[in-house]
Amino acid sequence: MANNVYDVAYNLETAVKESDEFKNLQTLYKEVFADETTKNMFENFRNIQLELQQKQMSGQEITQEEVEQAQKTVAVVQQNEAIAKLMEAEQRMSMMVSELNKIIMKPLEELYSDVDSAN
Amino acid sequence: MANNVYDVAYNLETAVKESDEFKNLQTLYKEVFADETTKNMFENFRNIQLELQQKQMSGQEITQEEVEQAQKTVAVVQQNEAIAKLMEAEQRMSMMVSELNKIIMKPLEELYSDVDSAN
Ligand SMILES: [Ca+2]
Ligand SMILES: [Ca+2]
Repeated sequence: MANNVYDVAYNLETAVKESDEFKNLQTLYKEVFADETTKNMFENFRNIQLELQQKQMSGQEITQEEVEQAQKTVAVVQQNEAIAKLMEAEQRMSMMVSELNKIIMKPLEELYSDVDSAN
Repeated sequence: MANNVYDVAYNLETAVKESDEFKNLQTLYKEVFADETTKNMFENFRNIQLELQQKQMSGQEITQEEVEQAQKTVAVVQQNEAIAKLMEAEQRMSMMVSELNKIIMKPLEELYSDVDSAN
């Protein structure tokens, strides 16, 4: 019997919530946001990152100066241990999420390539 | 006990494969690709669509002429019943996928908003 996709998706939501990756991220977020200075440092860094991403996505040119400025900010911010750990945890979480997506999207990918190679 | 996220993701992969949405899409793809003329019509349409998407994502301007050309192609292509049905099935599938993603990403969204509103 096929399980309903949404029921299984809710199971996956629960599994994500109970994963070490998520719990670790949660703990580190709380740590960073508990201290006003660390929080501001992190949010400042996050804003610079988002700005560059939006520029890139909209096809705007990113100047050499902006790249250097962003690199300096990363270097400074990573000297804060709580933030460095949080950034690592975010990377691990985002790797997990992209692997989960790859697994779930496999039927569709196979469908496209099967149909195409049969013709 | 927490389930391993990857085990649950594989369950979701199976559930997607066994869903009516997926099976319907599979049947309609085979139908469209079984006929050379219909297949070419569909692939031509798909290529125009992808080209416009890539232009948009890279921040290039899309001309009025290109929009009109794309609209004409959609109108022509949708007169083919097999293709029209396939396009509908793709839309239903993509709605399902985006709902699944929303469910799975909920813990992360809640994490960000909880941490932020607490400060
Ligand atoms: Ca082919
Ligand atoms: Ca806040």
